[in-house]
Amino acid sequence: MAEQVRAIRTRQAILSAAAKIFEERGYQASTISEILTVAGVTKGALYFHFQSKEDLALGVLNAQNQNLPLPERASKLQEIVDIVMLHTYRLQTDPMVRAGVRLTMDQRAEGLDRSGPFRNWAVPVSERLDKAQLQGELLPHVDPAETADVIVGAYAGIQSMSQALTDYRDLVVRVSALLRHLLPSIAQSSVLASLHLGESRAAEVYHEALLLAQEREAAGALS
Amino acid sequence: MAEQVRAIRTRQAILSAAAKIFEERGYQASTISEILTVAGVTKGALYFHFQSKEDLALGVLNAQNQNLPLPERASKLQEIVDIVMLHTYRLQTDPMVRAGVRLTMDQRAEGLDRSGPFRNWAVPVSERLDKAQLQGELLPHVDPAETADVIVGAYAGIQSMSQALTDYRDLVVRVSALLRHLLPSIAQSSVLASLHLGESRAAEVYHEALLLAQEREAAGALS
Repeated sequence: MAEQVRAIRTRQAILSAAAKIFEERGYQASTISEILTVAGVTKGALYFHFQSKEDLALGVLNAQNQNLPLPERASKLQEIVDIVMLHTYRLQTDPMVRAGVRLTMDQRAEGLDRSGPFRNWAVPVSERLDKAQLQGELLPHVDPAETADVIVGAYAGIQSMSQALTDYRDLVVRVSALLRHLLPSIAQSSVLASLHLGESRAAEVYHEALLLAQEREAAGALS
Repeated sequence: MAEQVRAIRTRQAILSAAAKIFEERGYQASTISEILTVAGVTKGALYFHFQSKEDLALGVLNAQNQNLPLPERASKLQEIVDIVMLHTYRLQTDPMVRAGVRLTMDQRAEGLDRSGPFRNWAVPVSERLDKAQLQGELLPHVDPAETADVIVGAYAGIQSMSQALTDYRDLVVRVSALLRHLLPSIAQSSVLASLHLGESRAAEVYHEALLLAQEREAAGALS
């Protein structure tokens, strides 16, 4: 068990070092030896966890998907808003999420398959749109797969613009504006009127998710 | 006059070389000496036109803004759609536009002010939204500056997603979907019904713009 904990910590140290180096140099210019130096682990330990630079980058890309648990809502559209808001909060505060997003947006990272994060984000959005459609939340013409791609793609650009203009200081404001522009073409007006899209939603959802994670951990420890 | 033509050609050769190197290596890792080699010009010629690597990158960033002329339309919202569609066509076909967009989206290009292109794109969109508002095309709650930023930011992400998933092959389809999702929260429904948002619009607008540019050039040569 102690060994397992140590392995998880080593893996985490390597991923943090990789995130830092990819962030500084970009994917192309980064080398495994730099990552080794920053992580302070042996070559053997690194190759035990990751087989290549691409493998390391995929590890960083996946770290942004380790979502905190979100409570279920009656409205599946609200769940989508909450996923977006939670990611927004984490993007402003968590270096690993930030590094994953930057790698995703690195349009020159040849040899690295960046399609994963776009697809991974589109899936939970698309699934909730399917449920929203079944329970009558959506306007009749909506194609859940198409709409999910529009939400994910548009969000990717809004965060990039916010980073370029204000280093993410205005991210929540911009995300809230995006949602107000997209949802009227997706939601039935009665549903639209009840959605929480405001700027305060990001921090609210984050704290709710943290509490839920702690509750689940406590329940797990007792069982 | 011959000297002026030569200077314009030299500047163009340097910019093309810079676009190629930035595209291959990213902003951080690119060097002026590599750009010199590819451009095949002297150091003196390069520094006559551009004082630094940042200056070169700004030149590439600005190249994407040299828009072809677009005919005026009665509907200012249609003009916005056409700006977006023309850019989409050029992004699929013009290496310099592509390089400018990638530099804009390079979230690790420290020391390079990437805010310019986002602002430069938002200005013509915002101006047309102002006019659209004056002539009653917009829904009452629309804030032109906010909406312009949403359109520009969302577009930036849609193109990035299209590049990651299909190397821009599905760009027109995705852009058309984005516009169909954004415009219902912006336009009066009577205006909305008359807008051309379809996928064929990109090539149509491009050819119209080319014709207009040729006409203007011919008129200039005659005067």
